[in-house]
Amino acid sequence: MSHNTFGHLFRVTTWGESHGPAIGAVVDGCPPGLSLSAGFIQQFLDKRKPGTSRFVTQRQEEDLVKILSGVFEDDRTGGPVTTGTPISLMIENTDQRSKDYSEIRDSFRPGHADYAYDQKYGVRDYRGGGRSSARETASRVAAGAVARLALGASVTLRGAVVQIGPHAINRDNWNWDVVEQNPFWCPDAQMASKWEEFLDATRKAGSSCGAIIEVFAEGVPPGWGAPIYGKLDGEIAAAMMSINAVKGVEIGAGFASAALSGEDNADEMRRSGNRLEFLSNNNGGVLGGISTGQPVVARIAVKPTSSILTPRRTVNAQGEDTDIRTKGRHDPCVGIRAVPVAEAMLACVLADQMLRHRGQTGR
Amino acid sequence: MSHNTFGHLFRVTTWGESHGPAIGAVVDGCPPGLSLSAGFIQQFLDKRKPGTSRFVTQRQEEDLVKILSGVFEDDRTGGPVTTGTPISLMIENTDQRSKDYSEIRDSFRPGHADYAYDQKYGVRDYRGGGRSSARETASRVAAGAVARLALGASVTLRGAVVQIGPHAINRDNWNWDVVEQNPFWCPDAQMASKWEEFLDATRKAGSSCGAIIEVFAEGVPPGWGAPIYGKLDGEIAAAMMSINAVKGVEIGAGFASAALSGEDNADEMRRSGNRLEFLSNNNGGVLGGISTGQPVVARIAVKPTSSILTPRRTVNAQGEDTDIRTKGRHDPCVGIRAVPVAEAMLACVLADQMLRHRGQTGR
Amino acid sequence: MSHNTFGHLFRVTTWGESHGPAIGAVVDGCPPGLSLSAGFIQQFLDKRKPGTSRFVTQRQEEDLVKILSGVFEDDRTGGPVTTGTPISLMIENTDQRSKDYSEIRDSFRPGHADYAYDQKYGVRDYRGGGRSSARETASRVAAGAVARLALGASVTLRGAVVQIGPHAINRDNWNWDVVEQNPFWCPDAQMASKWEEFLDATRKAGSSCGAIIEVFAEGVPPGWGAPIYGKLDGEIAAAMMSINAVKGVEIGAGFASAALSGEDNADEMRRSGNRLEFLSNNNGGVLGGISTGQPVVARIAVKPTSSILTPRRTVNAQGEDTDIRTKGRHDPCVGIRAVPVAEAMLACVLADQMLRHRGQTGR
Amino acid sequence: MSHNTFGHLFRVTTWGESHGPAIGAVVDGCPPGLSLSAGFIQQFLDKRKPGTSRFVTQRQEEDLVKILSGVFEDDRTGGPVTTGTPISLMIENTDQRSKDYSEIRDSFRPGHADYAYDQKYGVRDYRGGGRSSARETASRVAAGAVARLALGASVTLRGAVVQIGPHAINRDNWNWDVVEQNPFWCPDAQMASKWEEFLDATRKAGSSCGAIIEVFAEGVPPGWGAPIYGKLDGEIAAAMMSINAVKGVEIGAGFASAALSGEDNADEMRRSGNRLEFLSNNNGGVLGGISTGQPVVARIAVKPTSSILTPRRTVNAQGEDTDIRTKGRHDPCVGIRAVPVAEAMLACVLADQMLRHRGQTGR
Repeated sequence: MSHNTFGHLFRVTTWGESHGPAIGAVVDGCPPGLSLSAGFIQQFLDKRKPGTSRFVTQRQEEDLVKILSGVFEDDRTGGPVTTGTPISLMIENTDQRSKDYSEIRDSFRPGHADYAYDQKYGVRDYRGGGRSSARETASRVAAGAVARLALGASVTLRGAVVQIGPHAINRDNWNWDVVEQNPFWCPDAQMASKWEEFLDATRKAGSSCGAIIEVFAEGVPPGWGAPIYGKLDGEIAAAMMSINAVKGVEIGAGFASAALSGEDNADEMRRSGNRLEFLSNNNGGVLGGISTGQPVVARIAVKPTSSILTPRRTVNAQGEDTDIRTKGRHDPCVGIRAVPVAEAMLACVLADQMLRHRGQTGR
Repeated sequence: MSHNTFGHLFRVTTWGESHGPAIGAVVDGCPPGLSLSAGFIQQFLDKRKPGTSRFVTQRQEEDLVKILSGVFEDDRTGGPVTTGTPISLMIENTDQRSKDYSEIRDSFRPGHADYAYDQKYGVRDYRGGGRSSARETASRVAAGAVARLALGASVTLRGAVVQIGPHAINRDNWNWDVVEQNPFWCPDAQMASKWEEFLDATRKAGSSCGAIIEVFAEGVPPGWGAPIYGKLDGEIAAAMMSINAVKGVEIGAGFASAALSGEDNADEMRRSGNRLEFLSNNNGGVLGGISTGQPVVARIAVKPTSSILTPRRTVNAQGEDTDIRTKGRHDPCVGIRAVPVAEAMLACVLADQMLRHRGQTGR
Repeated sequence: MSHNTFGHLFRVTTWGESHGPAIGAVVDGCPPGLSLSAGFIQQFLDKRKPGTSRFVTQRQEEDLVKILSGVFEDDRTGGPVTTGTPISLMIENTDQRSKDYSEIRDSFRPGHADYAYDQKYGVRDYRGGGRSSARETASRVAAGAVARLALGASVTLRGAVVQIGPHAINRDNWNWDVVEQNPFWCPDAQMASKWEEFLDATRKAGSSCGAIIEVFAEGVPPGWGAPIYGKLDGEIAAAMMSINAVKGVEIGAGFASAALSGEDNADEMRRSGNRLEFLSNNNGGVLGGISTGQPVVARIAVKPTSSILTPRRTVNAQGEDTDIRTKGRHDPCVGIRAVPVAEAMLACVLADQMLRHRGQTGR
Repeated sequence: MSHNTFGHLFRVTTWGESHGPAIGAVVDGCPPGLSLSAGFIQQFLDKRKPGTSRFVTQRQEEDLVKILSGVFEDDRTGGPVTTGTPISLMIENTDQRSKDYSEIRDSFRPGHADYAYDQKYGVRDYRGGGRSSARETASRVAAGAVARLALGASVTLRGAVVQIGPHAINRDNWNWDVVEQNPFWCPDAQMASKWEEFLDATRKAGSSCGAIIEVFAEGVPPGWGAPIYGKLDGEIAAAMMSINAVKGVEIGAGFASAALSGEDNADEMRRSGNRLEFLSNNNGGVLGGISTGQPVVARIAVKPTSSILTPRRTVNAQGEDTDIRTKGRHDPCVGIRAVPVAEAMLACVLADQMLRHRGQTGR
């Protein structure tokens, strides 16, 4: 992870500001010979795109991805395939309304990166948050689609929202089919109704709320990960924490494991046919930084959207006290659209670890 | 973070197994001209070393560090100073009892890295956990001492244990002076007594418990951190998750922020003299991946020690069901000795970000 | 240097194939606040662009660069300035003639990367050489322009061709003014005439020839470079050798130093005013991998263009013997257009070393 | 290549000064399960060690290597094998004569790194050159031995000296058997006699001379290397240029290719049985940065030893003009002992590229 690039063998570099001409990603090190089309990537971008329900931002961005390099098609390849060279993906910014940015130009929005960017760089593109805008995550989703392809069909990646505001799901009601049937990626049908009410109220109040997201990777074989500082869970933690508004990351039982006894926390093992089977998954599929063959499970906390209509106290660039309220078409709960982003980051980390494991061990 | 190295400009590589001849760290990229002696490093190792109370492992390791390179002294330097070249630190392993390792050689200990290492590498040094032993963290503490020196006196790093097992401190009782006065780095004197009882019971039962640790860096100026994938909090997350037994990382309000409203979560700002002041620190000193000048606050969950006397079900290398209990001199709560380790990792991440910030911006 | 990225703090990633929709570069880590416009970059691209004389390829590529991110302009910045975020540069491919590529699809061109790519990836974009085309170097030139800006006015970068085919210049005739006055970047007016004849004959014969290029960086302060494996000359060597068709790199006296005595090779020093002055520059401005304050001097050997009209023996994808001649609009001496590329690579390496030096030492 | 580490998957970090307690290397990312003993490494160190003939330095360093980690032995492994964790190698410095270093402390030796280190760091360990001493190359040789093991028996690495001072070998006399039979690694028996005379004269005159070295890797399969900035030849160039006193690197025909015609330079291909055969090797086994299956051939220029008895003009730390002569036991031709070092660097680069190729492509 360095500046705007992450990964070692499967490497992703993203670029672009919210209100510039375009954003994009360069995916380097992808295995050659994989069938890759813009349509394949688009389906994941569509899961993240604005305007899909009243619970997310009403901006109109089509988020159409173009593949500019790294893919080739002729009669012999039978459709576009990756060539092993860098895959350049670009998404043009089509909803750059010309509007008045003077307020966010001059005042630091609480909870946003405005002040920090200003202190670091001395200059910033304040239009829509510039580089710190969650719009950047579209590039990650596009790169993540390539990572899924590299991982192949045996690895399944999916995620869900497990808490919105103070309202957590009942895990006994978990139903993956339900996840796609509500606008919240909620696996608990009852809770989905509750969230609908809660979010309507939040939205009407001009307020916002946080969320907790859980992502799973099933089918990861044992052995991926690189102790000590390239641990699979360490890299997942960095990848997740790099997503806008994320303030916490857990693997498996996570923070709850602190309150468990050693007996209860240990994931015991038994033989099952020719395989070793774990009797629980408190470790979240990772031990010693290396995958165990169990599902890899990560949970992330997303803070409430910082752009709210309620005025907040702040300071302006001249150092004077002032108040600010953030108008515009913002997600009341930015956590909802973070689900495909978290899946994408998990996919990228796993693809990179897969290649590194194969490199070192030949397996 | 790659395999056994982390950092970009301030880089740390560690090596060594629990029961090999020695362990060590190579610290590369340290600024030149800093006064560095083995004694300075030793004080931090002494905070982590075994046998300091009945609540930690009774192994007898002196953990004496030697500086093998990167430091030079003559009349002109007036004491040993860093030269800007790699600082090689070595700690000899003096407590390698010859004992019978056949049990852990043949059976995978639940909660330990045994199975994962075996699946990854096909071979492992099982003596005391080999490379996956928490003994490796002594190397981190040594490297962290160098990082503190690089950060200078204006940055203060310290940590505390805020929960052991199910027993969390009362934050209203927080007293930094108390932290050094009990064997748990506990800032709440009343809770320290409770933990004493709880840990005695845990130890006698041959069981173990988890912990939650909080580390702080005060005096970090605004501007350190590198969006998007080199975010300060992203790198802290990776560094913390790389510590043995850590299963969760939070920054600032962390997981609790999911339940807050946007109004409550926003850290408002006001002018204070010539400075900007934040009125709360839910962001934990980081916005958009960049430091804000507030204290950087991270919290980590450490799972219960996996080495317990109670027999647990497992499978052996021949694929047969068996039971295992881990004898030996283990920490009932490995979280306690993780405090200086977490401080060290935070120091290393900050030192690296400081140098990178200075590199890019000249500030 | 990894796959398609190089640099540590000043990082360049390039992407794109000769006959895809576009090529480009992402420059990450650039210092903020530098005035950067597309026009500034364009002047360097124009030095490299095809069709400027009859001695280079007659392809018609305008090579117009677009800046897609990383630069911002408002009243306060007074013109477009870098923001410290990734600068995405794109050059659209406008001269993609639809032509018959069946010959190079099926047969490996001697001296080209066809066979190697095929063996590595199992698939390749053969149109115009795909990723291995010298067209990729336009992205380097664009990135190099940004690097020059980062280096500032005190560092002067320039290059010249010192040999074409067997005809080397007379160094006594060196005149920098002459370099811009002939189509060969030749500093020796007499030799420029000879090369004109020689290249006309080469071109008419459907043959090609090699060249030797020399690049200089003046104004580099002492202290840039990072022993042992991040040496300034080591990174220059890698950067130069990564340019298409380059087969050798020298620093200072280079290969000639092997025949010198220790007495003659030593660059003696004397005081000159308040400064230390070297009496010769056999070291090429680098000692121990660190700049000395003298001009940094590198020389590179560029092999003859592999695309020639004379038929050459080869093997086709079916493993059968065949002959191949490469039609099309090729540079008879690809070395000529490599001058701005070599300058650009030197600029990128220096910019990165400058930032790293500043990061570690604060100077 | 960054500071004191190089490689991506097969990574080498070295540390240590000439006159500190020890020097060493940490080799990370080595494939597990390889038989590795100190004795295996020692044989390569013995090729490099001082005092083997009157033509190299008469220092008495045994250069005995110790393996401190990363290797494990029990009944099941049948001898010590690599475990996939970092291999820490240490060589103690046994010949640190206490002597007077005041002259090199105060005056910058021409051709040495003294002035550059001083300017960069403001402080330096001047004893024997400190970190910039060629003694550091022992660490590379040790790491290179591990790399050879990773490459396996199918890759053969060897090198020879092809020129000393102005005296180049006759390539028609090349005989690999002769290389081991003279103290110069000279493949031309007649030239070896001439060099004996020449070096005796050089040594007696208190002077020194340069050399050209050629290294070969046979058995490298096609496909290793990573365009564009991770090219095999680019990384070889960086690795070679990082060796002390090296001022030039060539691949294949190198600088001579500049004078060839496109027809003569092209390595034509023909079918040979089931394989493709190149009819010449001007490319030195690399095309487009990727191995072709031909022998990889690199040539390096080593400048004359800068430590000579003849007084040279210089400046001291106080900025005053002075003269300096370097007493002590120096190699009259440092190029001779560079042969095993160049072989080691080639081995490390190839091992890393092998793993990266396998990682990306699965082959």
